[in-house]
Amino acid sequence: MSRPRHFLTLEALGAEGIERVLARAVELSRLRGSADHPKPLAGKSVALVMEKASTRTRVSFEVGIVELGGHPLALAGRDLQIGRGEPIEDTARVLSRYVHAIVHRTFAHATLERLAAFAAVPVVNALSDSHHPCQLLADLAIVRREHGSLGGGLRVAWIGDGNNVARSLAIGCGKVGMRMAMGTPEGYRFEDEFLDDLRRIVPELDLAVAADPAQAVRGAVAVYTDVWTSMGQEAESEQRRRDFAEYQVNAKLMSRAPKDAIFMHCLPAHRGEEVTDEVIDGPQSVVVRQAGNRMHVQKGILAWMLAAQA
Amino acid sequence: MSRPRHFLTLEALGAEGIERVLARAVELSRLRGSADHPKPLAGKSVALVMEKASTRTRVSFEVGIVELGGHPLALAGRDLQIGRGEPIEDTARVLSRYVHAIVHRTFAHATLERLAAFAAVPVVNALSDSHHPCQLLADLAIVRREHGSLGGGLRVAWIGDGNNVARSLAIGCGKVGMRMAMGTPEGYRFEDEFLDDLRRIVPELDLAVAADPAQAVRGAVAVYTDVWTSMGQEAESEQRRRDFAEYQVNAKLMSRAPKDAIFMHCLPAHRGEEVTDEVIDGPQSVVVRQAGNRMHVQKGILAWMLAAQA
Amino acid sequence: MSRPRHFLTLEALGAEGIERVLARAVELSRLRGSADHPKPLAGKSVALVMEKASTRTRVSFEVGIVELGGHPLALAGRDLQIGRGEPIEDTARVLSRYVHAIVHRTFAHATLERLAAFAAVPVVNALSDSHHPCQLLADLAIVRREHGSLGGGLRVAWIGDGNNVARSLAIGCGKVGMRMAMGTPEGYRFEDEFLDDLRRIVPELDLAVAADPAQAVRGAVAVYTDVWTSMGQEAESEQRRRDFAEYQVNAKLMSRAPKDAIFMHCLPAHRGEEVTDEVIDGPQSVVVRQAGNRMHVQKGILAWMLAAQA
Repeated sequence: MSRPRHFLTLEALGAEGIERVLARAVELSRLRGSADHPKPLAGKSVALVMEKASTRTRVSFEVGIVELGGHPLALAGRDLQIGRGEPIEDTARVLSRYVHAIVHRTFAHATLERLAAFAAVPVVNALSDSHHPCQLLADLAIVRREHGSLGGGLRVAWIGDGNNVARSLAIGCGKVGMRMAMGTPEGYRFEDEFLDDLRRIVPELDLAVAADPAQAVRGAVAVYTDVWTSMGQEAESEQRRRDFAEYQVNAKLMSRAPKDAIFMHCLPAHRGEEVTDEVIDGPQSVVVRQAGNRMHVQKGILAWMLAAQA
Repeated sequence: MSRPRHFLTLEALGAEGIERVLARAVELSRLRGSADHPKPLAGKSVALVMEKASTRTRVSFEVGIVELGGHPLALAGRDLQIGRGEPIEDTARVLSRYVHAIVHRTFAHATLERLAAFAAVPVVNALSDSHHPCQLLADLAIVRREHGSLGGGLRVAWIGDGNNVARSLAIGCGKVGMRMAMGTPEGYRFEDEFLDDLRRIVPELDLAVAADPAQAVRGAVAVYTDVWTSMGQEAESEQRRRDFAEYQVNAKLMSRAPKDAIFMHCLPAHRGEEVTDEVIDGPQSVVVRQAGNRMHVQKGILAWMLAAQA
Repeated sequence: MSRPRHFLTLEALGAEGIERVLARAVELSRLRGSADHPKPLAGKSVALVMEKASTRTRVSFEVGIVELGGHPLALAGRDLQIGRGEPIEDTARVLSRYVHAIVHRTFAHATLERLAAFAAVPVVNALSDSHHPCQLLADLAIVRREHGSLGGGLRVAWIGDGNNVARSLAIGCGKVGMRMAMGTPEGYRFEDEFLDDLRRIVPELDLAVAADPAQAVRGAVAVYTDVWTSMGQEAESEQRRRDFAEYQVNAKLMSRAPKDAIFMHCLPAHRGEEVTDEVIDGPQSVVVRQAGNRMHVQKGILAWMLAAQA
């Protein structure tokens, strides 16, 4: 058997692959509910292994798999021997005997890499501590729709921590020819090691980093933020609340961006912290569309992977 | 899009709607396992959100949805961001993008009302702290079968607390023209606020309340009870055991009802507390049929909701 | 309705039944992924009730049920009222109204026997504290494949505790005409009560018990081991580590068995305790095939049960 096609980061797709998956997602969205919707997963089962609780990830993947004709198995980390110290290699080999693909939401990206190394079936990163490529495809689908295409130097502003979503955004922007401006306090920016990765993966990326969020949003087509404290960082939450106090996306900050800029957030949001109600519930917000797109692009990814298997 | 049809209490159906759903349930029960069973949920997914653990609710809905051709997603409260403080409004909007209906079992009826207010898809109350309308439809189906119809002043005795099941029973009796007699200690009867609701929703309801359970069961076609301590009331369980000591449904109490009265309980039961083994396992007991009917009437409800959507 | 056919131990099948199920499993494995795969569970739902966490049990049953055309409901013990003290008799009666078969993984075999006594649908033992018959069928399938048939006095060595897997192995060996040699410290061998059961169920069993593991593996076609401390025995784990120190299956012990002996383990394994990496990951190991076979033989069992129902 040839090596399966995995999807751990946006690097796996490249610019052309991203365009193909996004085009496929648009088509699948249009066909939703019709008898012509393709069923490339007919007769196939897909494991959804979730170490972290999740609404969007669980439901968007599960419904997407069903609509592609497949059977999803939602497996909580605590229900698996994974949670009781079984080597991930054994889990990878055994699951490969039963299911036709594995979607994994994990605390540690390294777990995902080991899973992919030993699995005989495709592995999808549904969210790890260092990447969130499915979310980024959902987001790029919106920019593509708003502007007709992704190229031409469109700029996205990221306000907040250099976290997993920010990392995937940087890779995605680099791949499709968009620019990225970060409004991020010192101490929370990308680590040198990841900057080295970026230079290797997307040497063409135009990345600006500033301490001033107002500078970052200037000229941006989208203003993107995320919670200040991600799961696993609860001990730092007081400190982070202080350090990010000036980084709230509110009406004032949005007024510094172009009038037609959209507001993005991958949810769940902490209203009153990183974003105000007026912004997240306002006319510029596309957060519900972002969540909805998760399903369509994930269908596109699964179809792309299984095309390679066939 | 028109507003979706929700099912939060029996008020949503009315007498005619109840009759139509019960007739549909009988038909679906008859067709179970046959190729002629209708599939109105084909291609559709339904979220089953359960904040509280449940055998009957989970399995009866899940199997019912499958037999209607749909895909059920059983979501435990703890697996959702709902459990981590995401506003229910966001959950409602996001789930509406993925699934075609939401079945919700909740601690607080107010949560369900907010979910319904923001959801773009139908919402079903699978059990809340103040109503249990699906259970009541299952129960009415048995009385309808035993007596040919529900009207004509048939009387049901409720022995116990004025809880969620009792409230739905009161609304159901009022809607279909049955009478209700409660054998309930003082301090555990319907609150004034709910009595006001009853006067508005079912002004025609014939409701008798007595401290003496023997008086309540006299002339009743059904004797209905429930656990003395519901989930969330564990701290009061000692007090409740004392206050309800004279309200056990046992052979002696059943002997005060007509010989052909049936015994009802929505399960799970605490044998030896609110009911004795001889009654719940005896020939008058219909508790297993009640549980079985849950599936059939819930199919009827889902079919009714989706007919409105189409 | 006739009594349903249950599968609680290998005794339920007998030699001829085992051969028939294994032959069916081979056929279903061959047809996997083809349109000719039979769908005897079409339109049927199967409850998978798991009191204990499980990867293999959950996924192998769930995918197998789906591929037979059915709908699996994976129910964690904690999500059921079972976990809150509802009598198993009530659960059995109610589940029988909704689903067409029940697969149960339980801590106590007695729970399974009560479930089967009150269920109106077939019950499968997916693992109990005293038997693991599905695992044994998966294992016998490998020996049958390697040797063309199971008879002729082939001997299996069991190194370790006289636990649930060992018990099912003893019954299986007796039924199919294989011999069993146990390398087991005193104090961890089969209890007298189970030896009485064996004399009744498989009087023809050739069982040798020795303290020396090297003696047990001599002439064996398979060397089988399991974790030293099963779930529920954690308090004894230090003592067990000492008592089983000489019972590790390592290269030295394997060198005392025939060169073409296979190594078996039902997983999850504690590498470095009961087995070394070099053995479990080596060329003689069939542990991943064992796990994979679970799905095929379980399909065979479900097809056998439902044939009896039809």
